[in-house]
Amino acid sequence: MFIIYNVEEINFLQSQSLFGGLTDKEVESILPLMEREVYSKGDVILREGNVNDKLYFIYRGSVEVLKRIDTRGKVEEKRLNVLHTGDTFGEMEIIDIQPCEATIRALEATTVLIISNKNLYKISKFNLKTYTLIIMNLARDISRRLRMMDRLIISEKFS
Amino acid sequence: MFIIYNVEEINFLQSQSLFGGLTDKEVESILPLMEREVYSKGDVILREGNVNDKLYFIYRGSVEVLKRIDTRGKVEEKRLNVLHTGDTFGEMEIIDIQPCEATIRALEATTVLIISNKNLYKISKFNLKTYTLIIMNLARDISRRLRMMDRLIISEKFS
Repeated sequence: MFIIYNVEEINFLQSQSLFGGLTDKEVESILPLMEREVYSKGDVILREGNVNDKLYFIYRGSVEVLKRIDTRGKVEEKRLNVLHTGDTFGEMEIIDIQPCEATIRALEATTVLIISNKNLYKISKFNLKTYTLIIMNLARDISRRLRMMDRLIISEKFS
Repeated sequence: MFIIYNVEEINFLQSQSLFGGLTDKEVESILPLMEREVYSKGDVILREGNVNDKLYFIYRGSVEVLKRIDTRGKVEEKRLNVLHTGDTFGEMEIIDIQPCEATIRALEATTVLIISNKNLYKISKFNLKTYTLIIMNLARDISRRLRMMDRLIISEKFS
């Protein structure tokens, strides 16, 4: 039996920092562990406060990151960020299994590729080296974001 | 030949989140890869802007985290934080090998246990599973800090 994968999807995944350093064969071996979901404009993909155990790659489209903010007793949903094709969300939840920090809503027709915590862990069973490399990449991405946030908070605090 | 390790050091390392989930034997196998350094009050342990490839555990003592801040053209060193026994620093640098974001200075006589990037990597050679667990723990710690910073920046921005 032959399974024909979308070459474009493989190329897309190879360009993701999470899979940096992986061979073509390694990326191909991961693709069967991934799901695809399609959302319409306005659809909520993740809801703030809900448990999330999946990592999302935006394959096509864009989403907004919304957070309920309490401003003087009034709770409003504020837009924190917009994410586009090639961006990811859910990295933190997949690592420490905590409720989502924000709501993710599609701004247009959006296709996401998804890997669950469970399926990510499966990689460790058939190739621990690949799994370790992915976790290293994930840690590096989160670390990079922490650096950015550190700088931001310092500039907010002292300017 | 017998090597007698400090039982207190082993217990200390076992209590560190970086080594969470590791067996006694695994922690013992890491100890020979670690160095000890002793600093006096006022000593600079890490200097902002310098490359750092080591992860530090404060075994005894306390340090301050200082950052050069440009406030209306005048550069001053401001204290961002104080770290105590059981705290760590250098996690981000060890993962993405970037210059230090801050200066670390001893506030009193301080002993640190240190593992270099190179020695951390050595663990992967003799026990990939242990290494993977450590990297997972590291990612989780950084992720936890990112969550805190996210919340902080939101409260600064919207309050």
